[in-house]
Amino acid sequence: MAQDMLLLWGSGSPPCWRVMITLEEKNLQGYNQKLLSFEKGEHKSKEVMDINPRGQLPAFKCGDNILNESCAACMFLESQFKSQGNKLTPDCPNELALMYQRVMEGIELNLKSGLVIYYNYKVPENERHDTAVKRNREALTTEVKLWEGYLEKVKGDFLAGNTFTLADVCVYPSISYLFRFGLCEERYPKLAAYYHRLKSRPSIKASWPPHWLESSQGQDMLKGI
Amino acid sequence: MAQDMLLLWGSGSPPCWRVMITLEEKNLQGYNQKLLSFEKGEHKSKEVMDINPRGQLPAFKCGDNILNESCAACMFLESQFKSQGNKLTPDCPNELALMYQRVMEGIELNLKSGLVIYYNYKVPENERHDTAVKRNREALTTEVKLWEGYLEKVKGDFLAGNTFTLADVCVYPSISYLFRFGLCEERYPKLAAYYHRLKSRPSIKASWPPHWLESSQGQDMLKGI
Repeated sequence: MAQDMLLLWGSGSPPCWRVMITLEEKNLQGYNQKLLSFEKGEHKSKEVMDINPRGQLPAFKCGDNILNESCAACMFLESQFKSQGNKLTPDCPNELALMYQRVMEGIELNLKSGLVIYYNYKVPENERHDTAVKRNREALTTEVKLWEGYLEKVKGDFLAGNTFTLADVCVYPSISYLFRFGLCEERYPKLAAYYHRLKSRPSIKASWPPHWLESSQGQDMLKGI
Repeated sequence: MAQDMLLLWGSGSPPCWRVMITLEEKNLQGYNQKLLSFEKGEHKSKEVMDINPRGQLPAFKCGDNILNESCAACMFLESQFKSQGNKLTPDCPNELALMYQRVMEGIELNLKSGLVIYYNYKVPENERHDTAVKRNREALTTEVKLWEGYLEKVKGDFLAGNTFTLADVCVYPSISYLFRFGLCEERYPKLAAYYHRLKSRPSIKASWPPHWLESSQGQDMLKGI
């Protein structure tokens, strides 16, 4: 089945990473894949646009099905390969509810990170405002504190409880991203512990963004969050 | 089970409406609910914040589980009440893939609508730029065209094919919203037909935003899209 799949991806992109973690967890190694460069604008290339008309990565084909939305891809793969590799949905209804809630909240975390990290990239120079930057940073701080609180309260090592689920698949890349961009480990000890704890999980290790391996140091953009 | 649920909601909010459609489809009428006013700022009240610390509606409790993210609530309800009311997930893998993809893409549609409709509400006066307004409107136009294209291509009356699924549950409210705010029916005939076709579906009729019934005319904000 893996040979019927094609993933076009960018290094470090949380949405791409989610799909790659799921493919690893489901023992779907050997899928066709191609690493593209955001810097070179390859996410706007015809190759990508033919699969993903929004010109975003991932662009993912699973047989004849196109699943460019990363969380959709993860949920679909889990549903189609339920008993292959690791089960990523808990049986316990309480954990399942928490899983769905965290998966969807993860999108909010990613959006708010993006508004801070990519402000200068996304907003033309003459439209930039210090007040907006301040507001975005405050919103991200509130958001990150929520997640620190979630990890304080949860019973278990993972976002939805005792097992690794789609919540971890979908949110771990976003949390790693925060630390890569300088989030203070001392200020967010539960998030930092979670980040380090899952680093060695085989699916995560195997799909670690290659350019993060080349330089362990990211930017300090989120130091003050 | 419905009596163990509590939904705090706002009229016309696509995320709230999604949950209400699902509850209707699953024959879970009789749940506890309270209509709150965005205008009066009731979404920031203690009652809401205690359930949803982001101060957003819906705030939804299902027994002890908190599911404020609307798509999460819909997916969870479907998983827990699989054989009650209408089945909202297709068996066919191709339709299932399309369902997940459209559910998640719906978030993008909603975000882009919000950036146009709520620009003046969200952006302080001294930070507003005509260039940003223009860019947001262009992005929404591109997005709406995508959806018109999806409905042109799909085989069947619904977003994922021949049956009403979670894709319709999650995206129909956003599409209705576009027309409420003046989207041109002639320019988007497939979307308009879909919008009118599903209006009479019992779950949608029963949960139609009450203040839309009072005045059938919304604003013309999206006329030029």
